[in-house]
Amino acid sequence: MAIAIFPGSFDPVTNGHLDIIRRAAALFDELVVAVLDNPNKKGRFPPEARVDMLRRVTTAWPNVRAERFSGLLVKYAQRCGARVIVRGLRAANDFEYEFQMAQLNRGMSEAVETLFMMTAPQYAYVSSSGVREIAALGGDITPLVPGALLREIREACEEIPAAN
Amino acid sequence: MAIAIFPGSFDPVTNGHLDIIRRAAALFDELVVAVLDNPNKKGRFPPEARVDMLRRVTTAWPNVRAERFSGLLVKYAQRCGARVIVRGLRAANDFEYEFQMAQLNRGMSEAVETLFMMTAPQYAYVSSSGVREIAALGGDITPLVPGALLREIREACEEIPAAN
Amino acid sequence: MAIAIFPGSFDPVTNGHLDIIRRAAALFDELVVAVLDNPNKKGRFPPEARVDMLRRVTTAWPNVRAERFSGLLVKYAQRCGARVIVRGLRAANDFEYEFQMAQLNRGMSEAVETLFMMTAPQYAYVSSSGVREIAALGGDITPLVPGALLREIREACEEIPAAN
Amino acid sequence: MAIAIFPGSFDPVTNGHLDIIRRAAALFDELVVAVLDNPNKKGRFPPEARVDMLRRVTTAWPNVRAERFSGLLVKYAQRCGARVIVRGLRAANDFEYEFQMAQLNRGMSEAVETLFMMTAPQYAYVSSSGVREIAALGGDITPLVPGALLREIREACEEIPAAN
Amino acid sequence: MAIAIFPGSFDPVTNGHLDIIRRAAALFDELVVAVLDNPNKKGRFPPEARVDMLRRVTTAWPNVRAERFSGLLVKYAQRCGARVIVRGLRAANDFEYEFQMAQLNRGMSEAVETLFMMTAPQYAYVSSSGVREIAALGGDITPLVPGALLREIREACEEIPAAN
Amino acid sequence: MAIAIFPGSFDPVTNGHLDIIRRAAALFDELVVAVLDNPNKKGRFPPEARVDMLRRVTTAWPNVRAERFSGLLVKYAQRCGARVIVRGLRAANDFEYEFQMAQLNRGMSEAVETLFMMTAPQYAYVSSSGVREIAALGGDITPLVPGALLREIREACEEIPAAN
Repeated sequence: MAIAIFPGSFDPVTNGHLDIIRRAAALFDELVVAVLDNPNKKGRFPPEARVDMLRRVTTAWPNVRAERFSGLLVKYAQRCGARVIVRGLRAANDFEYEFQMAQLNRGMSEAVETLFMMTAPQYAYVSSSGVREIAALGGDITPLVPGALLREIREACEEIPAAN
Repeated sequence: MAIAIFPGSFDPVTNGHLDIIRRAAALFDELVVAVLDNPNKKGRFPPEARVDMLRRVTTAWPNVRAERFSGLLVKYAQRCGARVIVRGLRAANDFEYEFQMAQLNRGMSEAVETLFMMTAPQYAYVSSSGVREIAALGGDITPLVPGALLREIREACEEIPAAN
Repeated sequence: MAIAIFPGSFDPVTNGHLDIIRRAAALFDELVVAVLDNPNKKGRFPPEARVDMLRRVTTAWPNVRAERFSGLLVKYAQRCGARVIVRGLRAANDFEYEFQMAQLNRGMSEAVETLFMMTAPQYAYVSSSGVREIAALGGDITPLVPGALLREIREACEEIPAAN
Repeated sequence: MAIAIFPGSFDPVTNGHLDIIRRAAALFDELVVAVLDNPNKKGRFPPEARVDMLRRVTTAWPNVRAERFSGLLVKYAQRCGARVIVRGLRAANDFEYEFQMAQLNRGMSEAVETLFMMTAPQYAYVSSSGVREIAALGGDITPLVPGALLREIREACEEIPAAN
Repeated sequence: MAIAIFPGSFDPVTNGHLDIIRRAAALFDELVVAVLDNPNKKGRFPPEARVDMLRRVTTAWPNVRAERFSGLLVKYAQRCGARVIVRGLRAANDFEYEFQMAQLNRGMSEAVETLFMMTAPQYAYVSSSGVREIAALGGDITPLVPGALLREIREACEEIPAAN
Repeated sequence: MAIAIFPGSFDPVTNGHLDIIRRAAALFDELVVAVLDNPNKKGRFPPEARVDMLRRVTTAWPNVRAERFSGLLVKYAQRCGARVIVRGLRAANDFEYEFQMAQLNRGMSEAVETLFMMTAPQYAYVSSSGVREIAALGGDITPLVPGALLREIREACEEIPAAN
């Protein structure tokens, strides 16, 4: 179980993501936090900015690295030499989507296994879209995002109106 | 518990909304039906038309008033002097979203509490988007919206094709 | 909205219950915490002990009182002069059961309204049955129950094996 | 129960759809697979191409025909002389939406009944959007769509970037 | 689709059951309402009394007959010459259990198909266990059960305390 | 991630369990399949028989061993030197219970992490209780349990009537 991938949009990274990263980093030899660069879904932050933010808040864990990827997740996992995809589950609503994705991925490669971690309760209500929306309205996102990124996230969300 | 807020899009108001308004108006001294004016999400009806429709169908309850608001809900609630946000729950699917919103709002202000009412079963399948879609296709929306607004809603939905 | 009832088994009271009681006590003039005495469902603690435990941990709120009741909830609510039943929702799974109960109660009396509060995330995983089970196995229930009841609950759960 | 309708987008038809068609064709005298032509929601495949693909993969069942329809489903059902609408349920998440649609349709016509079939487990994770997304990324959709359409679907999804 | 089976405990029959029976009777040539006689799960009413109650309230539909059965449902269906099992879905919570049962039954016989009908919203909160519980507490079950059985059900539930 | 525990009742082991065991055995150095011996919940098979059945069907994986345990799972995990608890998720309904258990376990020890695997779709409807029930009724459980245990499970379930 040397290498695991934690894929997502991270647009931007939240304290909920960070909690999963911390716990997964304790279990795996190497954890690749993989920022999906989806050309059909423009995010609020460009992919390279998301990778950069992730790098800055994960320096405490030497076995964690953040990268950008595009294309099929299972192929990327194989290129990384990863046998495990890590995903967080926040709520029963997440389940069906994650189940569908995990099965589709298994259908493409049995060599990669998806493992789920339950989000800690205090982060169960935190999402990147919630962060963007609250910041855009001038609300306080302090409890939702890493302190080191607070100003940067707030300013980016305030200046450009959020696309729905 | 003098003042409560019932926030939403009300695009347009449905009989399901009206049932919650009637029941909440019986519990609180004052009920503010608050139409969210979201600049990033254009509705079928302009916010002022939604407020106007709400006013016309709530005249029976002197302690109900309809208003337009933008920005953070908890800040608006505090400006109104409201300690309670009222929300209707129609189905288990609503739960996760509403839970997330309620927690985010509590994170921003412990002084405002969200209370949920279960939608009456006969309205559990009624939604503004369903009303818009059926009306646009020439279907009968009589059981779904207040009689006084029937023609107005039908005509507005028929003339402009529904954005998805 | 002078008087509200918070009904339940409270077998035993948990920190999750206490959080709802605290928040509801801030909204209503009077809050009756009503311990259901169900002759067909023997609990771990006798109803009078549950009422007693509730009384001891709610002394900080003068408008809260704990009582035992049996029979139909809506009739009991009417005897109390309460127009509101308060219930906590922990998870989507709770929704369907609570929806069914709320509708059945409305069918019996439209004069009593059920209002739901979302359990705070840190208590979403706490339940009386979980407390009983962990205590019976010698686990630490410190974060789950009020400190003043810790020893009493632990001893009661350890001495008698839990009925399933 | 002579005639039944199986409505959907079929953008494109999947092996999950085909499983429902096969099982429904065994129960009804006639099964109309009805491709919704929604002018407000452009699909990846034009409606006529979706109908054509359905026709090619349902030739084995003489009592199945594919058609395009627009407007209200219940009115279309009545024009077809159908008393039954067939829908597949893949997961609990589908339930609420399908429940809402079924109730809205019953509200418009009690003469048409919606019957649900549970998707076979091996197809529970298959969806048209999943097919489009995987094909666009160059993944293998062989287990997801009828073999006769494999190349056509793959090429169409690869050439045009998927709208989200 | 000549013959369909509607299996259940019917302990006792509710207005929700009756709504499904009425709607299914309109679709099938013959509908067998099949009362499960489960020797491991004693009901409040003996199986023969449940069959008898069903017979009395379904006399309006000549193509409906009530019977008692034990053993495997799919084998019973085959003995009846039925190719369809009808089940009502009240809520998302029902889904998983019904999905599991439908798949298990299909695993045992592909010749029998389970079709689901959505319970009408006004009956979505009605269950046999709710009826028993309310009646035992002296509550009014008039809106929940057929009028012809009201007294009989009430008396039976009052005299014997409900097993949990 | 050397050692992981897969706890459960395994009353009896099913093909669904075996699929999780096979996949988890490929990820961890050592997998302990831990049979919960719950004195308050008598199973159909005595704990030692469940362990024995597990041993016989896992001989192909040298890094898997089956054991019986009682008491708190996290303490048992620590005695085993395991940092990971593996659980299978079959459906959204499982989610809430598993979430609650995972949080309670984390509350007792942060040193043990629960990881979830999605059950393969073809086993999503398989459960030990379903196996017992079908076998007791004389149904065919061949697709549900390991072939080597088929006769033993069938005979045990047929001879003693299933407690509900």
